[in-house]
Parts: sequence; structure tokens; C-alpha cells
Amino acid sequence: MNIAVAQSGGPTCAINASLVGVFKEALKVPEIDAVFGSVNGIEGMINDHLIDLKTMILTNEQMELLRQTPSTVLGSCRFKLADMNEDDSDYQRILKTMQQRQIGAFFYIGGNDSMDTVQKLSAYCKAQGADIRIIGIPKTIDNDLCVTDHTPGFGSAAKYVAATMHEIARDSSVYSIPSVTIVEIMGRHAGWLTASSAVLHRLGESAPHLVYVPECEFSLEKFIRDVRQEMAKHKAVICAVSEGIEVPEGVQSGVVDNFGHKYLSGIGSYLENIVRQEIGCKVRSIELNVMQRCSSHLCSRTDIDESEAIGAAGVRCALNGETGKVVVFRRLSDMPYTVKIETADAAEIANREKFLPREYINAAGNNIQDAALSYFLPLIQGELTMQMSQGIPMHFTIQETLLR
Amino acid sequence: MNIAVAQSGGPTCAINASLVGVFKEALKVPEIDAVFGSVNGIEGMINDHLIDLKTMILTNEQMELLRQTPSTVLGSCRFKLADMNEDDSDYQRILKTMQQRQIGAFFYIGGNDSMDTVQKLSAYCKAQGADIRIIGIPKTIDNDLCVTDHTPGFGSAAKYVAATMHEIARDSSVYSIPSVTIVEIMGRHAGWLTASSAVLHRLGESAPHLVYVPECEFSLEKFIRDVRQEMAKHKAVICAVSEGIEVPEGVQSGVVDNFGHKYLSGIGSYLENIVRQEIGCKVRSIELNVMQRCSSHLCSRTDIDESEAIGAAGVRCALNGETGKVVVFRRLSDMPYTVKIETADAAEIANREKFLPREYINAAGNNIQDAALSYFLPLIQGELTMQMSQGIPMHFTIQETLLR
Repeated sequence: MNIAVAQSGGPTCAINASLVGVFKEALKVPEIDAVFGSVNGIEGMINDHLIDLKTMILTNEQMELLRQTPSTVLGSCRFKLADMNEDDSDYQRILKTMQQRQIGAFFYIGGNDSMDTVQKLSAYCKAQGADIRIIGIPKTIDNDLCVTDHTPGFGSAAKYVAATMHEIARDSSVYSIPSVTIVEIMGRHAGWLTASSAVLHRLGESAPHLVYVPECEFSLEKFIRDVRQEMAKHKAVICAVSEGIEVPEGVQSGVVDNFGHKYLSGIGSYLENIVRQEIGCKVRSIELNVMQRCSSHLCSRTDIDESEAIGAAGVRCALNGETGKVVVFRRLSDMPYTVKIETADAAEIANREKFLPREYINAAGNNIQDAALSYFLPLIQGELTMQMSQGIPMHFTIQETLLR
Repeated sequence: MNIAVAQSGGPTCAINASLVGVFKEALKVPEIDAVFGSVNGIEGMINDHLIDLKTMILTNEQMELLRQTPSTVLGSCRFKLADMNEDDSDYQRILKTMQQRQIGAFFYIGGNDSMDTVQKLSAYCKAQGADIRIIGIPKTIDNDLCVTDHTPGFGSAAKYVAATMHEIARDSSVYSIPSVTIVEIMGRHAGWLTASSAVLHRLGESAPHLVYVPECEFSLEKFIRDVRQEMAKHKAVICAVSEGIEVPEGVQSGVVDNFGHKYLSGIGSYLENIVRQEIGCKVRSIELNVMQRCSSHLCSRTDIDESEAIGAAGVRCALNGETGKVVVFRRLSDMPYTVKIETADAAEIANREKFLPREYINAAGNNIQDAALSYFLPLIQGELTMQMSQGIPMHFTIQETLLR
């Protein structure tokens, strides 16, 4: 039997670690021959664009390198399978690829959109009487997948965001004049990553002084009032703001991707202008942009190790005969931090989102409660010992021409 | 005798290391009693706002923490002393502070503006017959100071920029469609930091595919032509662009600081829009913003060690009776990398800028020559073993109320 693995959705620091998990676990199983990597997510399965990973990843050192490489070494996609009752042409092509290549299990590393693919493809294979196991392996820096305690990739993003926010706190407080700094953090609908920056409070930092997440209603009037209040207490006020907070129309660029997601940008600079107009103080906005999802030079070892482990668990799940399932984390304890890997139906995760619980947010809706920090902190612990070359963390890559 | 030290200008990762250098060296000298920290640069000297550092920095562990803390622990300023022949009131106040506090030497860690202060203050003290030594210790991520081979703070900024550019290269190449990514890097007039991102070529990376620095004339027509040419060769084209390249008016925000520097912003997003209009492909701009100057979590150990060493050398320079001088690096060899610390007249550095040599830039003015990389590479070598707390690099700070 051969297996295939693909990576989908937006990059994180941990997607390749999950690939390593699948790959390493497969190496232990004598009945698995080839491990195919599908190029650009499910598109590679549709177009039979597969590469034989056993010819690419030859050494343990390369696996280590892959663990410290951000993004998706096999490329990614944002591709939504049609309803099979309406148009099953892509399904047919995928099944043809799988049958021709003798693929008995397919592992899809991705977010809630990818779990939609897992659910649909698994249903299709069953309907066609094909014994091919389709397993989802979660990932997203947004941490917004249901069922699982947290998502692979989130811990590394949170560690980068918190460490960078800490540095921004130093940077913004140097001058004698009062200032406001607005840090825009990813999160369309869920404020997990923005909220996680509040772990700095456990280091005795007052920053972030204000935290705005999409789970709470946002009002410009209240925002200005909040900022003024914090300015009375602190010379340099730092606000963490989710890209997805609801502000008046015209701010968002309006570009929409294949899943109907609006591509957001400019909320930080929008609020910067509001503060300049209304308060008139020194103000700066900072967009953490793609750095928050790809800065593997400061990844969380906990996240990378867990991401590898959940990839490996996916393989065992398929070998146990499961399909249409997603491997998930269940937290047993914050301290000592203990998690268990279980499985859930892809249907429970596909196309759904998990939001910050209201009790993690303060009553005023402008900061994060201490209780939430016990949830976040275990996820950002530990660092990798990076393999460096020329003073720069090294990456594992596959020749560009093979990915075309 | 007491001494005083102050920090000025924009933050870097290495200004506190130079402070540690001054402090540690002073501890070795029996004739130096108090080491005063002047709050907010020269403003602290004018307003007699000094803190006794020996009561703040008590342990070697705290000195280590300070070495890994970005920005300026004593605060900073952008304050230009008037011509003393026109208005010497601030000079009088500084001299009064120095005499009342029995300060025999003053160390000013800063850029070319601060070296203007060193020059003027030293001339004033001499004219007043006051034997107070005024010594400049260079710093700037811009690397644009004359005489010195390079500036403390530059190596750490360059390491962060290159490592992040490497990660952006991974992040930007995941989808199957062609894309352009524009990375905006600090540098008003000099392209050193932008150019340093080309060290990635030594890791076998094709990114950055295009590099634009203020030293070369910039044309939008040529830019679009360059991008199209690179798109023919690479799926994901990455451009490194200095904030200071000359583009048509209306892009810059026009805010001007005390030294007449224009505050630049938006060149990346301006070019993003141009690419969207002219080429119509997927395009993103990324501003590395303050992260490039404060991301001490990925500082260069070479930079931090050298910054400490040059601070210490400043103290020895003052003890040798020098004044109006700046400590500088002279490079003896790229490989093995060897530097020597010497002194130069502040007048040679004050208010001047050093630009990228033309031979570091390719003939087309859109990339960096390999020869330049031998200059950059030694500066980004090595990492600090970070002291961590809660999964985040720790910082050394002084109570906010003491700095007010």
C-alpha cells in the first residue's frame, strides 16, 4: 500500500512538522511502500501531481530541517470541492489518482476548509466502495477549529506574537512624549491569537494595555475613551487589535478568496488615523503580517513536537481503519501540561469556527482575563535548537521545478 | 569622579549592550564612583534627570538580561543642541548638571545626530575650561555612519531582516499562482539594511529577486519591467525595497521630525498597488516596521558582543584624556573576521552619512553583488542564549516612574 499527504490553507510554522510526523510514522510500517506528497494540496491529487517523498527526505537531519521550515514544503491551495451530487468530476479524478497510485490512505493537513474536503472525499470513497482512508490533520494559526483543544501552528504564532509585542513595548516607550501603538494581529472571526499576546501580563508587563477581539462588539467612541484612560496611566499605550474587528465600511479592501473570506487589511492604520485625529498624540500602527505565521526562527517547541505527534497519530488512525476523521488534542491538565490525541468526525470540524469563550475576555471587552493565560502559556513553551547556515536558520526545500 | 551615559535616537537591539560595556568597564576603574544614566538622552543632562545605575544593575545576570533587551533602557530623545554662539542656555544647564554631579566623562550612544551633540558639547566644555570628556559611541541599524566599518545595532537588524526574508520566501511560494511580494525595509537615504537581505543568496536562495536602494535612481517603468522579467523565471517574486527610494510625491506622509527627517511610510503599499494595476497578479506588501530594529530575540551575537566592547572602549578612551571623539570599528579582514576599535573625531561623523558603495550594487541597479555579501555576513553570525520566562525572552527594565 502507498499513502499520500497534502498541505492546505494558509502557512504556519508547524505544517511541515505534521508532514514529518506522517512520514516518520509511515517509515515504521512495513506495509506502507511509497509516501507521496501531493503538490498544492488537493490540486495535486486532482492533477496527479505527486512526488515520492522517500526519494526527497533521505536523512534524519533533513527531517529535523523540515521541522524548522515554515510554510508548506509541498505547496498549498485554497480549493473547495464541489458538492459531489452536483459535480463529481474532481472526485473522479482524485479517485483515479488514488487507484492508479495504489494509495490506501490520504492525509490532509489543513484548517476547517480542508476538513470539509476530508469529510466529502471520505463520503465519496465510501459511496464508490473504495477502501481508502481519508484523515484530517488540523492546523491553523487562528486556533479556531472546533473539538480540538488547540491547533498545531497556533503555539508558534502565539510565541512570536507575544515575544514581538514584548519587544514593541520596549521600542515604543523610549521617548518622553506620550504615544499609542496599535498592533494588528491575524484573526478574521476569532481573537485567539490577539488574545494570546496578553501572556505578557504574566511577565509583569502592563502591555498590551488594550486588547480588541472580533468576539466583542467594537465601538470607535469606546476605543478612544479606552485609549484616553490608559494614556492617563501609561506613557506608551499598546493596543492589540484583531484584523477582524468590525469597523465602519470602507476600511476593508474587499478582495474575496475562493471560500468567500474577505481579505482584510488596514484596520491598524485605520485606527492609527482615528487616534491621530481624535487624540492628536504620537501614534503608530504595526501589522505583524505574514511574520506571525512564518517566523519559525522563534517557533514553540511544544507546538512543533505536538504537530509532529498528531501527524503520526493520523497514520495510526488510518491503519486502524478509520476514515472521515480528524485527529484532535484533548487537554487533561494545564499544569503539568498534559494532552491526549483522540479522533473526531471531520463533520464536527468542517466549516465551523470556535471562538474565544466570553469568560476569557474582561467585562469591558477590552482586555483578557488572567484565567485565559493558563490556557495559552503551555502552548508557547520551549524552543528548537535551530540548524543555522551563514547566521540564518536553514530551511528544507524541494526543487522549484518539481513543484510546478 | 563620576561618569554619565545616555542613549539617543531610534532604538536598536544593541544600545543596551553598549551601556553594559560602559558600565562594566567603569566597574573595573577604582577612580570612577557613580555611573549615572541620563534619562531620555541629552534631555536628562539638561534637566538633571539622572539615575544611579549602580543601584539598578546589581548582578551579572542583570547585565546579561540588559544585553538581550532591545531599545534604550534609559529612554531616548531626538534633541538637537542649538549653535552655542546663538543660544547656550542648554549647554549651561548641562554643564551645571555635570559640575554639581562631579561628572568627569559623558558617553553618548547614538547616531550621526548624537555625534553632533558630542562635538558641540566637547567644544563647549573646552571653551569653558571644564575638563569633562565627551565621547560618542556609535549605534544605528542604518549602518550609515562615516569612518566606522559598520555600526553597532546593524548586525542584529540585518540578521532579523535576512532570516525573516528567508521565511517570507517560504510563505510566499505556497500557492500555484504567480505572485509578487514587496518587503519594505528601513533606510531613509542609505540602503545598507535592504542590501543585507541579499545574504540569502549565499544560502542558495534566489530571493530577494530584486533589491532597490536609495543610492540608485528608481523608475516605476523599470520596476515593472524588472518584476515582469523575474516573474518569467520565478513563480513567487520577492522585492526588497528601502523605505527611502524616491517615488512620485504624495506617497510619503510628510511628517517631519526635529532634525528635518521626513517620516516615511507606505512605499511598499504604494508599489503593491502599482503592481496590482500594471501586472494584475497576486501581490502583497510587508513592512518590517519596528520589528527590524527591536527583534532582539534573533540578535546577532557578534553585534551584541561588539557593541559591548565598543562601549567599554569608550570608557578607556575618556580615561586616556580624549574628548570630542567617537569610538569606531576598523575591519582588518573578512575571513577570519577581525576588527579593531579606534577613535575618530566626532566632526568626521556628525551630520554625515555613508552610502552603499556603487560596486556593491549590480549594473542594473536592482540587486546586490556577491562581493557585498562578504562584508555583511560576518556581522550577522552567532546568537545569544536567551534567558526566557514563560516561553518569552526576558527584558531588563527600569521602573516606569523613575523614567518620568
